[in-house]
Order: sequence, then structure tokens, then C-alpha cells
Amino acid sequence: MSPLDALVFDAYGTLFDVHSVISKCEQLFPGKGTALSQLWRSKQLEYTWLRSLMGRYADFDQVTADGLSHACRALGLACTAQTLAELKQAYQTLHLFDDALAALRALSAMHPRPRLAILSNGTPEMLNAVVKHNQLDMVLDHVLSADAVGIFKPDPRVYQLAADRLRMAPDRIGFVSGNGWDAAGAKVFGFTVFWVNRANAPVEELGVAPDHTLSSLHELPGLLADGGVS
Amino acid sequence: MSPLDALVFDAYGTLFDVHSVISKCEQLFPGKGTALSQLWRSKQLEYTWLRSLMGRYADFDQVTADGLSHACRALGLACTAQTLAELKQAYQTLHLFDDALAALRALSAMHPRPRLAILSNGTPEMLNAVVKHNQLDMVLDHVLSADAVGIFKPDPRVYQLAADRLRMAPDRIGFVSGNGWDAAGAKVFGFTVFWVNRANAPVEELGVAPDHTLSSLHELPGLLADGGVS
Repeated sequence: MSPLDALVFDAYGTLFDVHSVISKCEQLFPGKGTALSQLWRSKQLEYTWLRSLMGRYADFDQVTADGLSHACRALGLACTAQTLAELKQAYQTLHLFDDALAALRALSAMHPRPRLAILSNGTPEMLNAVVKHNQLDMVLDHVLSADAVGIFKPDPRVYQLAADRLRMAPDRIGFVSGNGWDAAGAKVFGFTVFWVNRANAPVEELGVAPDHTLSSLHELPGLLADGGVS
Repeated sequence: MSPLDALVFDAYGTLFDVHSVISKCEQLFPGKGTALSQLWRSKQLEYTWLRSLMGRYADFDQVTADGLSHACRALGLACTAQTLAELKQAYQTLHLFDDALAALRALSAMHPRPRLAILSNGTPEMLNAVVKHNQLDMVLDHVLSADAVGIFKPDPRVYQLAADRLRMAPDRIGFVSGNGWDAAGAKVFGFTVFWVNRANAPVEELGVAPDHTLSSLHELPGLLADGGVS
């Protein structure tokens, strides 16, 4: 079997560190930055799942604002509209994880070069902004948003979008995610799945296991080049 | 308009206190009881939503065990199979919230008496056990499980089950939940919704609001009798 034809990356928590908003949170709410960032992320994800199940889709920009708003209230932080806007704006300038750029460059230099894409819950506007901010527009062939199908991961329609746009069978696509639940959803769909488990967390107990577990994206190019993955 | 014809209660977190497992958790893992109980509940819910979206239903007994298993690993607690079984068993003897029994009795004594039911993610076996343990089998007309439709709340098919079994239009049914996200899902479905907000938490930002917010179930019978709810 030939090597994988494409690598599709999740964005938030995989290439981009959602917790790079901590410094901004900490600046606005001294001593509460980490707690706010964690609860914000947690509510943001929860709302994507709940809205998907309820059949009440709102885009990720809205859900991100809603998660932030709830997190502030739950922590008793007085968030003005301006504070909320400022924090949400920080999502457009999230940092790349240290291992991400080197991995993407190495993948770009492979022969044959696999197609490289993002598949994310983020809106096209949010994704284009953070991709451009981190100068990834030169290495990515596609930036795909769940917004095109009006539901969030791990609904299979989101993963299907990547197979459709790349015109490839799911098992020819390597899907890379730092989110264990996203890795599980992608595996159920049929991708070859790489879970980037930077925090050395226990696997999510969802009845499926990723094909490969990496401690960082540094391992990815070697794994593909070795022919260990096909 | 006549008063509501039925009151349908969520079980876990509404009638039964899921955190009544804390003492058992604390006994097994001194100093970690509260953290374990909270993470267990959090993963249990997360897994119901994720499995529903992935199209990989497993029943609530399994998901409860999976959430517990993950929580133990994430907290670095050595859980033997026996410990896991012992803790899961505690779900069959969860305590009623202090306000629940009095409210159910008062509702039972109303004229006309509304039909009283449970609609829960729990399996029939789990629900029957905890209902019997708390001697609620005498006051409840129906104990309905999401297991009959093979998906979890807040998917509308779960709420539809109650309307179907009670043979009532959704707006004739009052749905009572202590879980803000469940109250939101029930409202989207079309029930008249009572959110029991014992912890005085901020409302979930899901684009819908419950019809009534109560600080405890003590308020429910009076609210219905006053004719404020129809």
C-alpha cells in the first residue's frame, strides 16, 4: 500500500494552542487567567456538542463568545462587552505549538508530498485569520471549516467534508488531532488517526483507539517516512 | 388554558444527587473524593454527548463505567476492577435531594393530579434500582429511559419519547431538570421547562432560556397550584 495521500490537521489544540490566551486572561483578571482559559475552552467544546445534538447550530465564533461569557459569569468575573471582544479577538492570534511548524515544513519537503489541510470547527474567518497570523497559508493546501456542513465534530458529516473536498477515500487520509475525542470521532469515521497526546493524558474511553499516539508532532514526519504508516 | 397534564423529571442531578457518591469515593481515595466525583460526572456527560454525535451508542451503565475509569486514570488513582464495580454500584443507591420527596408528595396530592414521570439517560435497570431504593415507585407513573431510543439527551428523540409514552402534546408537559443543558434541550423540543438551579449557576448560553428557574423543588408545587403555570 502506498503512503498516505493527505494529512488533515485539527486546528485548536493541535496546531494552535488555545491556552495561549492565558496571558491576556491573566492581564485582564490577575490570578484568574488559567482558570478562565480552562473553563472557557471547556464550555466552548460543551456548547459545540450540545448545539449539534439539539439541532441548534450557531457558528464557532458565536459558540466561542458564549463559552467565554458563561465562563466569566461562573467565575464571578465582570466582563464588559469590550473585554469579551478583546478576549475573543485573541483567538485570531493564537500561537502555534512549538512542534507544529517544524512538522509541517518536514511534511512539505517529503517526496511524494502529501496534501496538507486543516479541518476545524472554526469559521472560515477565524481559521483564515489564525492561519495567516502564523504564516501557515504557504504550506496548507486546504483550510476546511465545519461551518460548511452546519454541525460540529465529532458528527461524521464534518469528517466527510475532508474526504469530499480532497476527493480521497478516508483510509488514504491521515487525521491528526491533539483532542482525544476528535481522534476518536475521526477513527469511527474511517481516517488513519494520529493522536498527539502532548499532556500524556489517558485515552478517552469511547470504544475506539487511535491508530498512532504521538507525544508531539515532531514524531509525525519520521513515522510517515519510515513507511511505518501506509 | 388548563394546568399542565404531566410533570416529567430528569433523574441524575435533579431528583438524585450524583455527588452522593463522594463519601464512597472519599473512603476509597482519601482526600480525592470530591475531585473524583466531579471528574467522573463530567466525563460521563461528555461521553454521552460524544457517543451520540459519533453514532456509537453504548448504554448509560457502560458510559458511567467508562467515565469513572477515565477519571481514575486522569487523577492517577489505582482503580481495581472491584473498586470500579463498587463505585458504579453506588449509582443504584444515590440519595434523593432533600427537596425532591416533599415536592413529589405535594404534586401527588394535587387535584387534578398531574401524571408524574422520570425521563433519564439511565438504563431501565439503573433507574428502577435507584427509584426503588428511594421508594419513589409509589408516586411515579412512568420511568422512561433514553435506552429505548438508543441516543442520549439533548437529542430531541429522547424528549419525544416522553410525549409519545404519555400521549400528550409537548407543551402540556412540564419538564423539570437540574441540568441547565438538559433544560435547554427540553425547551428547544417544546416542553414547558423548569430549571432547578440549586447552585445559583449562570444560565447555559445555548440560545434558549427555561420557562421557569427555581432555586429548589420546594417552589414547584406552589408555582403550579397558583395557576402561574399553564
